[in-house]
Amino acid sequence: MNSRRDFLQKITASAIAFTVFPHTGVAGKEATERPYDGPVLRVAIMGLGSYGTRVAEAMQSCKKAKLVGVISGTPSKIKDWQQKYNIPEKNCYNYENFDKIKDNPDIDAVYVITPNALHHPQVIRVAKAGKHVICEKPMALNAKEGQEMVGACKKANVKLLVGYRMHFEPHTLEVIRMRNAGEFGKILFFQGLCGFRIGDPTQWRLNRQLAGGGSLMDIGIYALNGARYMIGEDPVWVTAQETKTDHQKFKEGVDETIQFQLGFPGGAVASCLSTYSMNNLDKFFLNGEKGFAEMQPSTGYGPIKGRTNKGELKQPIVVHQTLQMEEMAGIILEGKQPVVPVDGEEGVRDLKVMDAIYEAAKSGKKIALKL
Amino acid sequence: MNSRRDFLQKITASAIAFTVFPHTGVAGKEATERPYDGPVLRVAIMGLGSYGTRVAEAMQSCKKAKLVGVISGTPSKIKDWQQKYNIPEKNCYNYENFDKIKDNPDIDAVYVITPNALHHPQVIRVAKAGKHVICEKPMALNAKEGQEMVGACKKANVKLLVGYRMHFEPHTLEVIRMRNAGEFGKILFFQGLCGFRIGDPTQWRLNRQLAGGGSLMDIGIYALNGARYMIGEDPVWVTAQETKTDHQKFKEGVDETIQFQLGFPGGAVASCLSTYSMNNLDKFFLNGEKGFAEMQPSTGYGPIKGRTNKGELKQPIVVHQTLQMEEMAGIILEGKQPVVPVDGEEGVRDLKVMDAIYEAAKSGKKIALKL
Repeated sequence: MNSRRDFLQKITASAIAFTVFPHTGVAGKEATERPYDGPVLRVAIMGLGSYGTRVAEAMQSCKKAKLVGVISGTPSKIKDWQQKYNIPEKNCYNYENFDKIKDNPDIDAVYVITPNALHHPQVIRVAKAGKHVICEKPMALNAKEGQEMVGACKKANVKLLVGYRMHFEPHTLEVIRMRNAGEFGKILFFQGLCGFRIGDPTQWRLNRQLAGGGSLMDIGIYALNGARYMIGEDPVWVTAQETKTDHQKFKEGVDETIQFQLGFPGGAVASCLSTYSMNNLDKFFLNGEKGFAEMQPSTGYGPIKGRTNKGELKQPIVVHQTLQMEEMAGIILEGKQPVVPVDGEEGVRDLKVMDAIYEAAKSGKKIALKL
Repeated sequence: MNSRRDFLQKITASAIAFTVFPHTGVAGKEATERPYDGPVLRVAIMGLGSYGTRVAEAMQSCKKAKLVGVISGTPSKIKDWQQKYNIPEKNCYNYENFDKIKDNPDIDAVYVITPNALHHPQVIRVAKAGKHVICEKPMALNAKEGQEMVGACKKANVKLLVGYRMHFEPHTLEVIRMRNAGEFGKILFFQGLCGFRIGDPTQWRLNRQLAGGGSLMDIGIYALNGARYMIGEDPVWVTAQETKTDHQKFKEGVDETIQFQLGFPGGAVASCLSTYSMNNLDKFFLNGEKGFAEMQPSTGYGPIKGRTNKGELKQPIVVHQTLQMEEMAGIILEGKQPVVPVDGEEGVRDLKVMDAIYEAAKSGKKIALKL
């Protein structure tokens, strides 16, 4: 056994129990000493790229979730992961044979972390194999695909969750708590600026076939989803404008920069920016009649920083993916209910807005929405 | 003579000379001791409301500009001002008789600080009376009116300036200097959030007849103008969305909240918010390939605060209206050229964008612009 990993796992699990879930009544010291003996979600990761690696590392500190399998098209990566994470040969699959996971009683769930365009067929195959699915954002390329995935998981009686790590992030949840408690008054405005300067032009994110789109699919979805969870309503209209300055790098169907605006039933409006051509834009601003919240970074891997009209936000700093997997294990294994949904239906709502943004950008029209 | 006023005038004038115009080579101490004996712009203020009062107070610290006359419809206000500012009876006018200012050799210029809808006829009357005109923002209700005002002033051979106080503000000018020096790289994005929660529903700003519009005319114009001077280009397209939550307070033709987006020839985009229903929104954000500038407050009366990728902006804190009147006197009397234009043509450019924003909000269409 890897003692360093066990050590980290122990202390981080207790840190989470102590700082993030104080309501459990588990005191820090006591938790460290008491080994976890509850149910564990045994997870296979599909797609061993950089984000898959990040999730795998973060899961080493989970108590309720454990990396037990891999699915990859690259045999050398599988070997590396087997060695690093003690994964038995029988839990390793490739993209041709992973339907056989159906017959593997040692895997409970598959976390799909592949290029966007592959999510739809892969999630449906995992569902048909009878395993729970966690799927990275965006869940699919459009709402129709998303709906089919939700349907397939329902039919197979497996849970479908979307990798909304921010829905568990403590600063974010504190802002949502304050909003729900009326501390900002009536919500009037949300601004989300999300973007980065994308590098290597040959990566899958810039390949229409694999990415399905451009910045909006990849990073703009944080502003879109953020508008919904920060305002706490679903938008009723959307307008959008696309700007492309580099037609070489951003080919047909791959959006470089999209501005979009959302209108909400309560009268609030949102103004968002999604871009692949600006350095590290990661800012949220929520404005109400009585107060505000500012977050920057707002959705990066952390630490998230922010302040409200009442002062600096001082929530615990967590590893997003550790907390996400811990909580998702709780949802799948214990039927826990998150404050902000992370299920397939939530993913479909984002996709409906995303569809409307692309339609608005193309047509120049204001698109009415009913989520 | 009012010795306190003279004292303040002396020290502030020298402070401006020393801190804001170091290139004049006038040392602080020397300037304090050497009385100003250059030309002075003798100004009458038209409209003695709260902003007129602010300008009058600020002008007490000017060396090149002096308040010498008033134009008002309220005799009691005229009396108060006469007493307070030592204004002779012969320099006092009302809205019926102010054309007679033509025959008054002791007034050089009139600063029009009246409700928006009145600017057009009043500026034209002042021009016909042969006096230079400074006109508050927005210069007029639309570009057509603005163009007529520019034409009238040209014909009368008088100067027409618009009250763009930010065009002289040191933090703002430093950001413009850095941008021009390439310190932010290629400019990609500007965001301007400008608004406040408007109070008294009976004020002229909420009266369509006097205001000509709503928040966009009054406060949104700062974001519009800011987008132009921060990016350093004129927009080529505009889109806009209007939202009204309070139809009682914001009647037909008086906009409560407008979001607008601008596209620029160099590929930059701007995302702006103009509102009468949110508390003190006063934020600018300029983003380039290599750096950024953030300002908050960005256009309020000050002190302006900001930071760039190189650190906090630490320009001198000035009284905006003092500096503006000092510089405008220099423009009118000495032909000085400001870094960012403040003439009538500049005002018309803003009005063309404003016209397009209203058109875009109404039609839902992207409006092409050529300024």
